[in-house]
Formats: sequence, structure tokens, C-alpha cells
Amino acid sequence: MKRREFVINTSIATAGALAAPSLINLAGNNSKLNVAIIGMGERGRSLLSILVRRNDTNVTAICDVEQAVLDKSQKMMADRSKKAAKEFTGSTEAWRELLNEDLDAIFITTPWVFHAPMAKAAMRAGIYAGVEVPAALTLEDCHELVAVHEETGVPCMMLENVCYRRDVMAVLNMARKGMFGEMMHMECGYQHDLRHVKLNDGVSPYGHGVKFGDEGYSESKWRTPHALHRNGDFYPTHGIGPVQQMLDINCGNRFVSLSSFATKSRGLNEYIIEHGGEDNPNANLDWKLGDVVTTMLKTTNGETVMIQHDTSLPRPYSLGFRFQGTKGLWMAVNKSLHIEGLTEPHRWEDAQPHLNEHDHPLWKKYSGDAEGAGHGGMDWFVINGFLEACKRGAQTPIDVYDSVTMSAIIELSEQSIAKGSMPMEFPDFTGGKWVRKKNEFALDDSF
Amino acid sequence: MKRREFVINTSIATAGALAAPSLINLAGNNSKLNVAIIGMGERGRSLLSILVRRNDTNVTAICDVEQAVLDKSQKMMADRSKKAAKEFTGSTEAWRELLNEDLDAIFITTPWVFHAPMAKAAMRAGIYAGVEVPAALTLEDCHELVAVHEETGVPCMMLENVCYRRDVMAVLNMARKGMFGEMMHMECGYQHDLRHVKLNDGVSPYGHGVKFGDEGYSESKWRTPHALHRNGDFYPTHGIGPVQQMLDINCGNRFVSLSSFATKSRGLNEYIIEHGGEDNPNANLDWKLGDVVTTMLKTTNGETVMIQHDTSLPRPYSLGFRFQGTKGLWMAVNKSLHIEGLTEPHRWEDAQPHLNEHDHPLWKKYSGDAEGAGHGGMDWFVINGFLEACKRGAQTPIDVYDSVTMSAIIELSEQSIAKGSMPMEFPDFTGGKWVRKKNEFALDDSF
Repeated sequence: MKRREFVINTSIATAGALAAPSLINLAGNNSKLNVAIIGMGERGRSLLSILVRRNDTNVTAICDVEQAVLDKSQKMMADRSKKAAKEFTGSTEAWRELLNEDLDAIFITTPWVFHAPMAKAAMRAGIYAGVEVPAALTLEDCHELVAVHEETGVPCMMLENVCYRRDVMAVLNMARKGMFGEMMHMECGYQHDLRHVKLNDGVSPYGHGVKFGDEGYSESKWRTPHALHRNGDFYPTHGIGPVQQMLDINCGNRFVSLSSFATKSRGLNEYIIEHGGEDNPNANLDWKLGDVVTTMLKTTNGETVMIQHDTSLPRPYSLGFRFQGTKGLWMAVNKSLHIEGLTEPHRWEDAQPHLNEHDHPLWKKYSGDAEGAGHGGMDWFVINGFLEACKRGAQTPIDVYDSVTMSAIIELSEQSIAKGSMPMEFPDFTGGKWVRKKNEFALDDSF
Repeated sequence: MKRREFVINTSIATAGALAAPSLINLAGNNSKLNVAIIGMGERGRSLLSILVRRNDTNVTAICDVEQAVLDKSQKMMADRSKKAAKEFTGSTEAWRELLNEDLDAIFITTPWVFHAPMAKAAMRAGIYAGVEVPAALTLEDCHELVAVHEETGVPCMMLENVCYRRDVMAVLNMARKGMFGEMMHMECGYQHDLRHVKLNDGVSPYGHGVKFGDEGYSESKWRTPHALHRNGDFYPTHGIGPVQQMLDINCGNRFVSLSSFATKSRGLNEYIIEHGGEDNPNANLDWKLGDVVTTMLKTTNGETVMIQHDTSLPRPYSLGFRFQGTKGLWMAVNKSLHIEGLTEPHRWEDAQPHLNEHDHPLWKKYSGDAEGAGHGGMDWFVINGFLEACKRGAQTPIDVYDSVTMSAIIELSEQSIAKGSMPMEFPDFTGGKWVRKKNEFALDDSF
């Protein structure tokens, strides 16, 4: 018998307030978790570097089609005196066998198109699914992820690390204290010049070169073809994740409609010509992705949200956060805030002292543990949240509804752009449960 | 015979490229201009303070329904040893008589609803119409302003001062040198906490108090009822003016569609309750204006523009400019820019040294003259541009097409919001002439 078994908490299921039954993992809190990673590329090994430092987790299985990255992963484990993991490789279907292992949790760090199928299969195998962003590329997969979760009772958490960014959590903490008043308008987005990531030399992930697709390496191999063929916001989750927490989306509030607007496409083509010349075979392709895609969302509680995708033009990195309520606002780009009665009227004030003062309890408790982990420590928190939920047999801090709500923006934005920026109805993935569901994300310092 | 007479330059009219015939004012360059001001409130007297310092202009007529502001205006002129102006008062129709005076130009600084009727009447009387923002509140008035201009050949310029803001003109100068590459995405807006302007004590314009409408004074009397009854972006011109110049709108480019999104309304009501108490008769009114209204525009050349109206919440003033092209971007809120090859990759750089280096020729030439004039000197430039065009019998630097394009956002945004953020077709006010019309705004240091 496998060590993973779940008991449905019938009292909660009967109450009907939550789709996800409360879960109790019979493994209990004392034994270590057995976890697997599918996809040992840059992202998989970055998560592995955090996992090998944990005492509560054994990485017992790893999977990739490329032997070289499996070797690198085993070395990382050996360097920390960890037992070698069982390897699954040989084809893009090898991961299916991995699901027969005795596992508590799986990290899915593969190219985008595999995320949803793997997460669904993991849940069906009774394994906590920790899936990299986005959880799904299509609305159909969003709906299916919810359906499989509701069938199986097994949690699926999209590993949206920015929900745990230190400044974002401090601002969430301030908002929950009422310091911004009632939320009104939010802005966010993925604004990151990825030209050197989308195009490379086919050998190193972030080197020079203008190759992609079959000739590219790492992200340029699988991410860039999306930009050639599709137009929409493919990467909304880093921006919208914190916004959803702040607005209690799916918990007394929900997105009701979405409209998207794309500029023309210039950035990748100009980059290829500049770095590869006019005669390069990749010059003058018909890139479908607009260089700046702006999406507007409306909520049933009357807030508006602007989210942007801006990854093919020269610009400084920014997630563009603006959280604005009736009493004030925080903006990330100028690192400032304004709060009526607290800061000087009509003036910005440096946000940092306020962020320090209202540092989230989780960061106060765990900043030492998170030090050195990827993306300023937030990767440590998102992994920790997922694994601690798994140890307790509890719902994950970001649940399947949160995950697919963030991910649904991808296809909805494509549809809106294709229809001349028509407003698209935003699906209610909770099936009406949002009216009673409570926001339980990071309410204290537990996980 | 009146001194104003216009001769159509038939060579240009025949070419058909421009709707506005080239005008020659028979008064010539040597005699002074006779100008009038309708509306001697805060804004009218602010313009008057600039006019009384000019040697090329006589303010020969002033009009207002309130004697006190006429008296203040006469005193301002007397203090500069200027001849008293003829007064028109007694009713809200008194301005019609003023049009029989021997005038070269009129400044219209009245409440919004009078702008378009007065501008039309001025053109019909053969008088250059300089109208405060916005030029019109309705699409019908936008179309009529164009029709009257095309009938009469008389210029109508909306006095959009922000087109002349020093940083904006420097960035325009940089853009025209190609430093930002091809323009892609623009942001702008009127973000100004006006609660103390929209509500006052009925005696002083910016005092305390929570009165408005019949009981209010100055802007609270006529501006605030719009917020009670309507939902849209009522004040788009300060933001969109510079964007239009940067994107060559109506000159080889045009807006093709618009979608608007409004938050709920909270700010004014909370302000009234805080400053006037729960029992105040103005507490708990049903304010229609959403506190943050975000509007997205698309252009025929493939750029997107975001414009916001945010005037009822506590926040620092900002017109929110972001001008982004294929080679870099400027943002106003963090006073920074990024230009590929010029600034450090992936980093912001202080914009000011670049703005200084690329100071617009007009500012280089006239900054001394503009010193001390309203709104950081830009009011001097917009008045100067208008009057210099008038002296030359030339088209104004901001023409009627520019003016109504900026103003049309008001009703279009209302329509879109009323229809659930549906995209609205943006009218082509030029009747197709935009495909050949050239952008002649501030090409050199003349005016």
C-alpha cells in the first residue's frame, strides 16, 4: 500500500463551502516527504537547490528527456550527501511511469504545454501537484484542472512565487490592516526584456545568438514559438497573483470580464536583424505576439485591474505593481507610497520604511531560511508553503481555483485580441463557491 | 469694416491636403492684437496675468456674470498700466454681444458646457477661438466644431498647455530624433486629488467644506455635478495632448477604437462624510463617476494608449506619462528613462540630464519669458503659440482636429462604460485628410 492516503473531512464537505475537501495525509508530520521533479532544466534545478537544503524532503525521483541535466541534478544531490534519485527519461512520456512511485508531491517544471496534463495526472495518482507557472495554457485545461481536483480531492498549487515577494507581502499585510482603505484599482504585469532569453545560440540558455525553436536551447526552444504563433498575455501570473490575494478573488470577489489590447510586433524582429543580420533565416518572420499587451479586468466588487505583458522591447525589469485603495496607494516603479493621514498630502514617500515596519510575519520568521534561495528568497517560501500543506494533508496556500484563475487570462486575452478587444466573460471556476470561500493565504506565520 | 479679414490661400486649398485654409490676417504683424476673454474666474484671470505682460496684445473686452471678478480683472490691467477693457455681463448670454467687438482672438475660460458653443460662435464671427480644455463635452459638438471651422476657415485651438510642458517637449524632441525608435505603447492621465476642489465652502475655491453645485463656488459649482451624474473620463486632454503629438495623431495616424473601464465610486462620499459628517445633506449621494477610469485606445499604426482619470482619491499629482518605443521608454512617475545603447542595460537612469540635453528649441528660446507664468511656464507657451499664429494669420499649433480628437474621449468613454466596456469606434474627424496631413506642432523655435 502506498503511503499517501487521504481522508475526506466530511464535516467541511457537507458544509459545501469549499470544493476541496480537507485532506489528511496519513504519512503524518513525522516522516519525510517523498517528492519528484519533472523537468530538470534551469527551473527544475533551481527548485532542487532549495529542496536539497530541506530536512523534511527526499527527492526520490527526477525526470527529463535530457541525460545531461539529470546528471547535473544527481550531482547537486550528491554534493549535499543526498541519496540519488530514481531517473525517468527516454521519451516525453517517461513521466507517466514516475507517477507509479511512492510519492507525496510532485514539482512540474517542464515547458508550458506539459503543465496541465502532468498536474491532472498527478492529482489522479493522489499526489500533491506543484506546477510551475502557468498552470494551463487553455480555458479547457483550466476547467479540467478544477474538475480533476474536485473529483480526487487532491490539491494542485501553481507555484506563483511573487505572491511571496517580501514587498508584496508587506503591502498585503498593510492592506489587511486597512491602511489602503477599500481597494479600487490595481496594476501589475510582466515587464521584462526577454530578448536574450527568447533567442540564443542553441548551446547556452542566455548566451548570444538569434536561434529558437528546434535550433534553440532551453526557453528559446519551447517558449519562443508561442510568440511566433499567438497574440495574448502568455505570462500573467507573476503580476496577477498578488493582485488576486489583495482583492480576495474567488473569496467574496471574482473577475467578471476581461479586455485585451496588443501593440504591433517589432522587438524580436529588430533584435534578430541587429544581432543576426538581414539575411538571417529568422529575420523578417511574422511574429504574432504584440510587443506590449495590456489587459483590463473588472471584478464583481467594482475594482479594475490592468495587467501588462512586455517582454520583447528594451526596458528595465518591473512587475509594475500599483495597489490603490480609498486611503492611498503603493507603486513599485518609484518605490513609493502615499497614505492619507500618514504621509504628507499630495506627496510620495519612500515605501521602504513602511514595508520594513509591516514586514509580513512569514518573512519575519523565515527570512533566514529563505536567504540565498532563488528570486530574492521568494522561491523558498512558495516551496515551503506547498510542502508544509502537503505534510499536514491540508489545502495548499494557493489552491486550484487561484491557479486556474491566474492562468485563464492567457486564452481569454488571446480571444479578446482576436475579437478586436471585445470584453470576454471571465469564467467562475469555483461554480459559485466564491461567495462563501474565505481568503486563507498567509494569514499568519505558519506557511 | 472690421480689422479682421481672411484671405484663403487657394494654392493650398486646391491641393486638398488640409481642411483649414491658410489664413492671412490683414491686420498684419505690426499692429497689436485685440483680444477678449470670456470667463474671468480663476482660469481667466490666470491667463489675463500673462496677457497683461505682453506688448503685442490688448485685452479689449472681458465677460463674466460676476461683477467681482470683472473688477479684479480690471485692477490687474490697471496695475500694469493697461487700458480698461469693455465689460460684458448681466446674463449668461452677454458673451454673444462681445462677439460684435473688433476682435482678433478670444480666450474661452468658462465652465465646460459653454466651451463648444462659444468656440463655434467665435469662428462664425471670424475670430480666432482659443478654448480652454476640453473643447467639447459631446461628440456632436466635436463634429460641429470641425464643421464650423471648415465652413469659416477660422482656426480653433484648444489651449492644451501640457503639450508645452518642458519635460514633455524635451521627450518629443528626443522622439523626433529617433531616440525611442518606433513608438509602441503610451500611458498618460489626469491623476490629481481634486476632492478639495470639487467640494468647498461656497466662498473660496479651494477652502474647506463639502458644498458643490448651486451652493458651491468656482469649480465645485459647475464641475462637480458632472461627477454626480456621469461616468467617464471627463478630463482626458492634459494626458492625451502630448501623446497625440508624439504619435502623429491625425497626421498619418489616428485613433481607431476606445474601451473604458471604471471602478466603483467611493472617494467623494467618504470625503463628505469625513469632513461634513454622516448627516450632511451631501452625504450618501449616488456619485456616478468611478474613482479611477481607465481608457484604452488603439491606433491605426498599431500603438496602444492607456489614459486614466483619477481625481477623487488621495494620491500625489501625476499625469502618468509613459512613452515607450522600440528603443526605450520614458516614465514620469519615477523621473527615469531607459534607452538601448545609451543607458545601462535593464536599468533606469535619471531622465533629467537627458531632458536638459534635448531641451526643446522653444524652451531654449523663451524660458525667460515664460518664467513665473502658470503651471511651470507652460501656460505662457500655449498662449504664445495661439497669439503668434493669430498675428500671422496662420493655422494654430493645435488645430481644431487635434482639439476635438482629445475631447471626443469624454463621450466615447461614457458610451463604452455604459455598454460594459465595449470598444467604441473612434470617429475620423478629419474626413480622411489624416492620411496626408503633416504634424507641424513645434517643429522649430518659432511658436
